Amino acid sequence: MATLKVPAHVPAPSEDAEQLRKAFEGWGTNEQLIIDILAHRNAAQRNLIRKTYREAYGEDLLKSLDEELSSDFERAVVLFTLDPAERDAFLAHEATKRFTSSHWVLMEIACTRSSHELFNVRKAYHDLYKKSLEEDVAHHTKGDYRKLLVPLVSAFRYQGEEVNMTLARSEAKILREKISDKQYSDEEVIRIVTTRSKAQLNATLNHYNTAFGNAINKADPEDEFLKLLRAAIKCLTVPEKYFEKVLRQAINKLGTDEWALTRVVATRAEVDMVRIKEEYQRRNSVTLEKAIAGDTSGDYEKMLLALIGAGDV
Amino acid sequence: MATLKVPAHVPAPSEDAEQLRKAFEGWGTNEQLIIDILAHRNAAQRNLIRKTYREAYGEDLLKSLDEELSSDFERAVVLFTLDPAERDAFLAHEATKRFTSSHWVLMEIACTRSSHELFNVRKAYHDLYKKSLEEDVAHHTKGDYRKLLVPLVSAFRYQGEEVNMTLARSEAKILREKISDKQYSDEEVIRIVTTRSKAQLNATLNHYNTAFGNAINKADPEDEFLKLLRAAIKCLTVPEKYFEKVLRQAINKLGTDEWALTRVVATRAEVDMVRIKEEYQRRNSVTLEKAIAGDTSGDYEKMLLALIGAGDV
Repeated sequence: MATLKVPAHVPAPSEDAEQLRKAFEGWGTNEQLIIDILAHRNAAQRNLIRKTYREAYGEDLLKSLDEELSSDFERAVVLFTLDPAERDAFLAHEATKRFTSSHWVLMEIACTRSSHELFNVRKAYHDLYKKSLEEDVAHHTKGDYRKLLVPLVSAFRYQGEEVNMTLARSEAKILREKISDKQYSDEEVIRIVTTRSKAQLNATLNHYNTAFGNAINKADPEDEFLKLLRAAIKCLTVPEKYFEKVLRQAINKLGTDEWALTRVVATRAEVDMVRIKEEYQRRNSVTLEKAIAGDTSGDYEKMLLALIGAGDV
Repeated sequence: MATLKVPAHVPAPSEDAEQLRKAFEGWGTNEQLIIDILAHRNAAQRNLIRKTYREAYGEDLLKSLDEELSSDFERAVVLFTLDPAERDAFLAHEATKRFTSSHWVLMEIACTRSSHELFNVRKAYHDLYKKSLEEDVAHHTKGDYRKLLVPLVSAFRYQGEEVNMTLARSEAKILREKISDKQYSDEEVIRIVTTRSKAQLNATLNHYNTAFGNAINKADPEDEFLKLLRAAIKCLTVPEKYFEKVLRQAINKLGTDEWALTRVVATRAEVDMVRIKEEYQRRNSVTLEKAIAGDTSGDYEKMLLALIGAGDV
């Protein structure tokens, strides 16, 4: 469930566009007005505002935001304003670039989106970068990471709930053998994790747990590749727990990890942030609102809190 | 260009459905009438006929065809009648099954369809088999074949004509090195062939040819995996030459290879059969019509000839 709050009566896109233009004009920028509008419109509404804004002022709203805002606040507003598929394409593209490269972001996008959402990201990637997502991922990764990440971002998993229990048992056994042998990047492990439906994978992991008495996630915490593989499995089966941990680590870090915090809030506010907040409170005995308020400040804080549904519209 | 001939005035789908029903009824089946209708309607029209038929007679047209027809004629009519995405999903599914398994058919479907067509095959595969295409391919192949085929069927290649010449040169060099070392299944070779756009791959191969003086297709004709890799490259860059060769081998074989012949005719009649026929005549000094007429007979022959545009509507 989304934490995004949209007012009962939403102004016309032309009115929102006009208000935003006013917020940019004159001395200083009216940040509160920007938050009041953009943090309280859904993806379709934001797209319409962008379209109307371009028609009225001959400039992309994102470019105006880029000129008027700065730093973490800018990144939060721009990321959230983007259409979800475009936003993921943008984040994935960043994640293949040298100075912002991240196997984790690629894995997160590949494993927590639905099959159709991920395909829409691949379409947006063509449009934005004149290349395919998988060719950039393949080109900019190597070894075991390439073996895992290319099929992850290329997957179009079956989304039905049907489960084949015989298969779940046989593949749990394969996973067990390979993991006992520390062959984390074995091609059978990669095949199972990258191609099976989420429902099927869940059945396989349940069987693993029952038959072998411990969760797959307990193995060898020092291996970097295994960490990524475990996180992929978590994203595929219990995404809210994965996101809770990313938020926890981002906030608890000495010096908040704003990139991770902004990314999770901007990408999940319209999806499952209610569940993530529940997980966060259960695990940290403090609400996510309180944690974010204690760790951030100013307009950036206001933007994040608006997106996670703190306060009224 | 398609060889499929659709009459200037096409009867209403309900009329076609009624005629087909009549063709099935009474003593014997009216095969000519079936050919006259189904071999002369485009994909959208055939879909409408199937829909109307189901509504009128409570049975799938494909099931009726299956009951009334047999052998090669049946396969040709049924394959052609299927919607292109469904047909490819059906062929790909067959190609992952034990007794009809074929790396070649999987490669052909992955490499000769457009990116969006291939994605539609993956969607149809979900609907028909409650699984993903890539999970079946990964599950039923191994070793080098899996390394090549899984990314091929999962690809969503960029389809623009933009070409990066620096990249073409550097990747031609990579291909040259690996192929000189007979490392045909090297992960860099696989990466280049499975992720680059067709235009980019073409530029890379042109550079290969210019810089190294011989085509990539000349290497080591005895290696089975290399044969498949070479065929993939051919499918991606000059599909009509690939299909010409499949037809030539199917027809020249001692005992025609009807499966290959039917597959190519049924899948290409609505796409590029005009070009394939030109290639065929150039390479064999005989028209494809004549070659097929000499090698097949009866209703099967009539169906194939209708699809490759022999005679009038």
